[in-house]
Amino acid sequence: MLKDQTFLRIPGPTPIPPSVQQALSRPMSGHRSNETSELFASLQPGLHKVFGTTQDVLILTGSGTSALEAAVVNTVQAGDEVLVIVTGSFGERFVGICEAYDITVHRLDVEWGTSFQVEDVQESLKKHPAVKAVFATFCETSTGVINPITLLSKAVNEVSEALTIVDGVSCVGGVQTRMDDWGIDILVTGSQKALMLPPGLAFIAASVRAWKCIEMNSGRGFYLDLVKYKKGLKQNSTPFTPAVSLLFGLDEALQLLEKEGFPEVFARHTLMKKMTRAAFRSLNIPLLTNDEDASETVTAVQPNDFDADAFRKVLKSEFGLSIAGGQGRLKGKILRIGHMGYCSPADMLQTLAMMEIGLLKIGKKIELGKGVAAAQQVYLTMRGTK
Amino acid sequence: MLKDQTFLRIPGPTPIPPSVQQALSRPMSGHRSNETSELFASLQPGLHKVFGTTQDVLILTGSGTSALEAAVVNTVQAGDEVLVIVTGSFGERFVGICEAYDITVHRLDVEWGTSFQVEDVQESLKKHPAVKAVFATFCETSTGVINPITLLSKAVNEVSEALTIVDGVSCVGGVQTRMDDWGIDILVTGSQKALMLPPGLAFIAASVRAWKCIEMNSGRGFYLDLVKYKKGLKQNSTPFTPAVSLLFGLDEALQLLEKEGFPEVFARHTLMKKMTRAAFRSLNIPLLTNDEDASETVTAVQPNDFDADAFRKVLKSEFGLSIAGGQGRLKGKILRIGHMGYCSPADMLQTLAMMEIGLLKIGKKIELGKGVAAAQQVYLTMRGTK
Repeated sequence: MLKDQTFLRIPGPTPIPPSVQQALSRPMSGHRSNETSELFASLQPGLHKVFGTTQDVLILTGSGTSALEAAVVNTVQAGDEVLVIVTGSFGERFVGICEAYDITVHRLDVEWGTSFQVEDVQESLKKHPAVKAVFATFCETSTGVINPITLLSKAVNEVSEALTIVDGVSCVGGVQTRMDDWGIDILVTGSQKALMLPPGLAFIAASVRAWKCIEMNSGRGFYLDLVKYKKGLKQNSTPFTPAVSLLFGLDEALQLLEKEGFPEVFARHTLMKKMTRAAFRSLNIPLLTNDEDASETVTAVQPNDFDADAFRKVLKSEFGLSIAGGQGRLKGKILRIGHMGYCSPADMLQTLAMMEIGLLKIGKKIELGKGVAAAQQVYLTMRGTK
Repeated sequence: MLKDQTFLRIPGPTPIPPSVQQALSRPMSGHRSNETSELFASLQPGLHKVFGTTQDVLILTGSGTSALEAAVVNTVQAGDEVLVIVTGSFGERFVGICEAYDITVHRLDVEWGTSFQVEDVQESLKKHPAVKAVFATFCETSTGVINPITLLSKAVNEVSEALTIVDGVSCVGGVQTRMDDWGIDILVTGSQKALMLPPGLAFIAASVRAWKCIEMNSGRGFYLDLVKYKKGLKQNSTPFTPAVSLLFGLDEALQLLEKEGFPEVFARHTLMKKMTRAAFRSLNIPLLTNDEDASETVTAVQPNDFDADAFRKVLKSEFGLSIAGGQGRLKGKILRIGHMGYCSPADMLQTLAMMEIGLLKIGKKIELGKGVAAAQQVYLTMRGTK
């Protein structure tokens, strides 16, 4: 086979578009140069659209976790109480960060594979009136669940003064996000998912209310102190040396999103979700989540009669196709297929066709072409048969 | 959809591997520099394997046609008699070149879509004993036919002193080629097909016997005079400025072929041919050629109940998928799918899945997934189910 051909269908990092790859290779420029400042300023309008906000979208050089940590350390302090909604590994991530700073964590644990209910969030908040911030995950990458972030802030605000802080890492850019309209106080995402970039940049925006809280907070650390980033952005710059090449790439990636058009980008992700789910359904392979909770960007399946890890191995060796396994308590039990960023319905047809061969190779009896046909049917239904 | 995503499944130019694309961007070097000389020399061993020859493989900067013309002008002159085996448009190309030089052409016309028979070649040669060269096409790109080049020289030599000159443009590199063992006197190919490069380079090698003829030939033109290229190669160089970037790319492409291994490269092309043919058979779409004549690198189908050009249009607009239509007398009547060079069985699964959607979109009633399933079955049969 083609030794260098790989298919990256994990839920991030995701494939890099050729034009972004080229942009990443632009000649290096000084991070305090006029060119870089101009570039830096030009990124804001696109990021505003991605976040659905008029607030500054700050750019950190770090992984998504760096911005999650920034969301914590800039808003709460040791001894403060917070509510963390845990729907999977990335809910746990917030818990871990908070605990590292001796913040008092109240957990709202939700069965992995399902989304949280805003009523349960309200109930928890009523029990813990001192909670200063609610931490939630938009798309829980570990389970392929999309949580009702659209409704969260309103529900929180009805019963509490707490800030609503959202990890949008594995979906923002691929699903419609209206930070301002939905009343999200802090929203975070990373570069390596729906934004079609390599890992290395994280993005964070805060509401007016959140900024008041941040500015009054005395223990914001150093590298992750958002006030520094806000001041930097006013001068079209960053407080510390940014990953300049990734800014070149971001410039191109935002242009690609604009060219495709955000409504079309979101529709493409919805289509890929539906194609993928229809395929597994037709092959009688159980999906981890129900339709209402299913993420547009990652689909989790829960094999009941074949070895998930053996399946992944054969896909990798046979085709260079990478899909993800389970994390945490779902390790070895599920498969996760990423369909976000630079990924098309045509790519999902290919992924599904390869997976059918992989299933037969590990001894699962399936009818060849059946999953592909189900996905094709969804495509035609959603895109029209003319 | 992803605006910049394209699928190039025409029979050349073919997709460029990422590492070749990178190599094409290496910093320019002087064409008479030591580095370029070293690079130039290093290309011969790989080209020897591609051609199956120990003779020099000369590199022309030009399209495949430039090397076809070189094969003509270096061996025959105005008034000489030649036999051209015409199995399609590229047989006609040889006729056109010969006629431009007032060479007397005897044609052996073969029904388009079938291969020639060596017995017919022998018969023609017996009728025309003064023929100095026989021109044949290895893979006839316009019909997807692979001709019996393995047997041609032997058959020619039994009845004639004529040289055997072969256009290998659309298959050499993708199918096993043994120029020396098969007794081919002149073999030509181009960069933009199985060699995974952009167009712009042509390759030509000649047997000891052919070199004698070339050296005695007084009217070899100027740019295409192969004696100049042979002298150049002795000094690890070219008589005229070569397309240096394409040499960088060739360096990488030959390494890719070596890494994959030539037997595996050829097996991959055979597998893609069989998958493609099985898919169209299962969809009851007639193939232009029978199995024995079918090329490993391009498959032609002959729709009998849908509009070939309308189908191509919908594939292009829906998915960015390019397949070719017919040429010459087959214009508008056939479809040609290229599966050569940087193209894998996984890519063909994707191509077939997209084509099924395209067929439904133009109103042809097919069972979704059926062609993909047939291709998957061929894959499993040929590659093993474990």
